[in-house]
This record gives sequence, C-alpha cells and structure tokens, in this order.
Amino acid sequence: MMTMETAIQDFYAEEWSYCYGCGRRNDHGLHVRTRWLDDQAGTTICQFTPEPHHCALPGFVYGGLLASLIDCHSIGTAALAAHRAEGRPPGSEPAVRFVTASLQVDFLAPTPLGPLELIGRIVEASTRGGSTYKVSVDVTVLAVGRECVHGHVLGVLAPADFGLR
Amino acid sequence: MMTMETAIQDFYAEEWSYCYGCGRRNDHGLHVRTRWLDDQAGTTICQFTPEPHHCALPGFVYGGLLASLIDCHSIGTAALAAHRAEGRPPGSEPAVRFVTASLQVDFLAPTPLGPLELIGRIVEASTRGGSTYKVSVDVTVLAVGRECVHGHVLGVLAPADFGLR
Repeated sequence: MMTMETAIQDFYAEEWSYCYGCGRRNDHGLHVRTRWLDDQAGTTICQFTPEPHHCALPGFVYGGLLASLIDCHSIGTAALAAHRAEGRPPGSEPAVRFVTASLQVDFLAPTPLGPLELIGRIVEASTRGGSTYKVSVDVTVLAVGRECVHGHVLGVLAPADFGLR
Repeated sequence: MMTMETAIQDFYAEEWSYCYGCGRRNDHGLHVRTRWLDDQAGTTICQFTPEPHHCALPGFVYGGLLASLIDCHSIGTAALAAHRAEGRPPGSEPAVRFVTASLQVDFLAPTPLGPLELIGRIVEASTRGGSTYKVSVDVTVLAVGRECVHGHVLGVLAPADFGLR
C-alpha cells in the first residue's frame, strides 16, 4: 500500500532499482521519488533539491539534471497511471516498469538552484488486453513557485526481455 | 588555437566553466568535451565513457545521462558553429556562449554501458548583425558502432545578463 511517505520507486522490482535517476539501490544516484498529488486528476509530484555542483553556472540548475528529473518522474507517473488503470496496487504482480521512448524538454527561464517541485500530469494512457503499454506525461518544473521548465515524455512498457536481448 | 587535444569547452569563459555537464572547473561534473570531427561538413565529436553507476539497469546507460551528454555536446557544437560562421577562433572576444532552449531525445534502443561516441551535426545556424544567435544541432549517440539514441537541440546565444536578472 502506498502512503504519503512512500513513492512508486519503492515498489520497483529489484533489477530496476539501480537506476541512476530513481533507483533506491543506486548509492550514487539522484533518488527521484514520485507520488500522487491527486490520483483522481491524474497528477503527481516529485520534490528535489539539487546539490550546488548540479549547476549550469553557479546558482542555476543544470539542464541535464532537469531532463533527468523529468525523465524519471514521468516514468514513475506512467507506472502509477498503469496501476490506476489496471485497478491494482503498486507491488502487485506482474511488476510494472516503463522505459522512455522520447523526452522533450523546453527551458523557459533559468532555474534558480534551490528546492524544486515537479508536477506530472497524465496526458494519455493506452491499454491493450487489460494492460497499459503506453503513457504520455507532461511535467512542469517549478522553482520558487514559477514554471521554469516544461517537459513531455512518452513512456512505453518495458518488454519482459528488456536489456537481455 | 584548437588542436586535436583541445575542446571548445577549454575556451569557455570563467563563469561558464562550472557547468555540471561540461565545465572544466566542476570537480563533480561529467567534463563533456566537444571538438570538430569535420569542420567543413559541420560535424563534431564527443567521446565519453559512463561510470557503472550511470545505469538505467545494470549494464545499460541511464537516459538522463544520455540527455545530458547530448545537451552539452550540442551547446559546444553551437559555439563551434558560431566561431566558424563569424570567422574567428575560440578564445577570441567577445566570448561565445549558448544556452539550451529545447532538447529532444529519442531512445531507439537500450544503450550498452561502455565507450560512447556522440556525433553532432549543425543543422542550421542563424546570424544577425554579424553574430550567430541560434543554432540547431542533431546528435547521434553510438555504442559499439550502433545508433542507440538520437537527439536534437536548439541552442540560443546567452544574453549578456543571463543569470543576473
């Protein structure tokens, strides 16, 4: 069961928990955590504070870090969308894991280095034979309450043999 | 003067040399380095070997890292394009520095973790009043000779007061 304290990444299968962006077992990683903001509305939230060295120039967040946060938060959102669409809780079998097909990031303004909020929104979730196989997600990155970056990700269900081919 | 050993990032101004992706003064950064592959053809190259912890799952490169490499290599390519278009060498004044307006990444296949080559190609460079203000760049990411990822970046000349507003 998910609580306010848990994130969808806490339920990722063992082999998926080493992701540099969101893997709970990656000691060097960013540990992105995604949870529902409003599951009825299909919105999610991720809070993240970059390190000072995650800068483009001193005091402003590096674009590649912002792309990374958008990527992992969107994939987490896709997994939440699939669980919701399939009517089963995170942690139930079969494990759900999406991968990124495409990532679009628009940098609207320099992002001041400090606490960030990423708001995800499920744009579309496609289901076939009872399982969700494709989810598109919009992400707004807020710094000090202002939208600095906008992202869009297309996530697709990872094939069972992903990485083994 | 640029030689085979130097990269455009070696010529970035002091305040731009702390970028997590490509800043030579960022002790925790990735140190992306961009140089001409063929300046007549407008192609550039970046070679990079991810660390084992830069993974999506063990043995495969993390998408956010690939987005970061594409971002900084494209911005370096944009700076090279500007110097070429303006007929002046890297290091000459005024210093040239582009920022990312948008970043598009298409993940074509899982990218095996190992040495990567990024080939940049200047798609379009727009000049106004003798200075280059907008450059679009395509990037192909090769692993073991195979294109795994394709990127597209629109870089725009950083305003003189960037980050100071």
